[in-house]
Amino acid sequence: MLDTIFARRSIRQYTSEPVSKEQIKKLLEAAMAAPSAGNRKPWHFVVVTDRAKLDALTRHPRGKMLAQATLAIVVCADAKLSEMFWVQDCSAATENILLAATALGLGSVWLGVHPNPEREAAVREVLGVPAGIAVLNVISIGHPAEKKEPRTQYDESRVHVNGW
Amino acid sequence: MLDTIFARRSIRQYTSEPVSKEQIKKLLEAAMAAPSAGNRKPWHFVVVTDRAKLDALTRHPRGKMLAQATLAIVVCADAKLSEMFWVQDCSAATENILLAATALGLGSVWLGVHPNPEREAAVREVLGVPAGIAVLNVISIGHPAEKKEPRTQYDESRVHVNGW
Repeated sequence: MLDTIFARRSIRQYTSEPVSKEQIKKLLEAAMAAPSAGNRKPWHFVVVTDRAKLDALTRHPRGKMLAQATLAIVVCADAKLSEMFWVQDCSAATENILLAATALGLGSVWLGVHPNPEREAAVREVLGVPAGIAVLNVISIGHPAEKKEPRTQYDESRVHVNGW
Repeated sequence: MLDTIFARRSIRQYTSEPVSKEQIKKLLEAAMAAPSAGNRKPWHFVVVTDRAKLDALTRHPRGKMLAQATLAIVVCADAKLSEMFWVQDCSAATENILLAATALGLGSVWLGVHPNPEREAAVREVLGVPAGIAVLNVISIGHPAEKKEPRTQYDESRVHVNGW
């Protein structure tokens, strides 16, 4: 498990092999195993496998790789279910998807959307996300066509003991 | 790895056995293996093992279990390193800590702090966190004295395919 955490890297090149339905289900089960404040589970997930929709999502300024990706999972939130903590909750679910993808031999990259209004408007238009629902990010996923070494970026200067 | 994602549950009862230095290092390595927007790594971590400080952190309204915990990791952020995405980045690092704790046989619970001003002021005072640094959460950690079954809370009504 610790190995999977270190093996998770941003993978932006993919083969044309599709991600299977079983794998997609596992990714979503992992997402919805995340903790949430008061167990309020404010999350929604849009699974995108349609080629035209994936291509349209490349409007995200860092989203060029979506033209190659065979899957995107767009993490959304019904923010009124957890006004204070929906970003945290949905980010934990996102990290679970990235780690589950790594464990399944898939590559992924997290493309931040909220709170950037242009990025959010673009995704909303492509996928028809309703006005009351926030778009936190787009996760680009596919079978990897590049390899990166496991790593931590551990930095002792970021660690404080028993006080700042 | 998927097993660890499903096995991670909020554990609020602990034995008195301390968490070892090696385990604490692993938790921090896992945290700093998280992705961050533009690899800006806005995170800081305060490791708390001092009994009086752990007891003082029980001022968090959901933090009673910290009186039993032998470790807390307080996840903080230098928000100016990533104005838009520090909450997401530090939440991913937090989820990595929870999963690494599970993999190491430890129990943990995520106590949300930011953006609640009273909770943030209390932690700031106990640990001397400087004014420019945000406090995202307190993670309570210890050797588990309760057992919970693995689970996902998968809910098909939260899944949308190729559009909302």
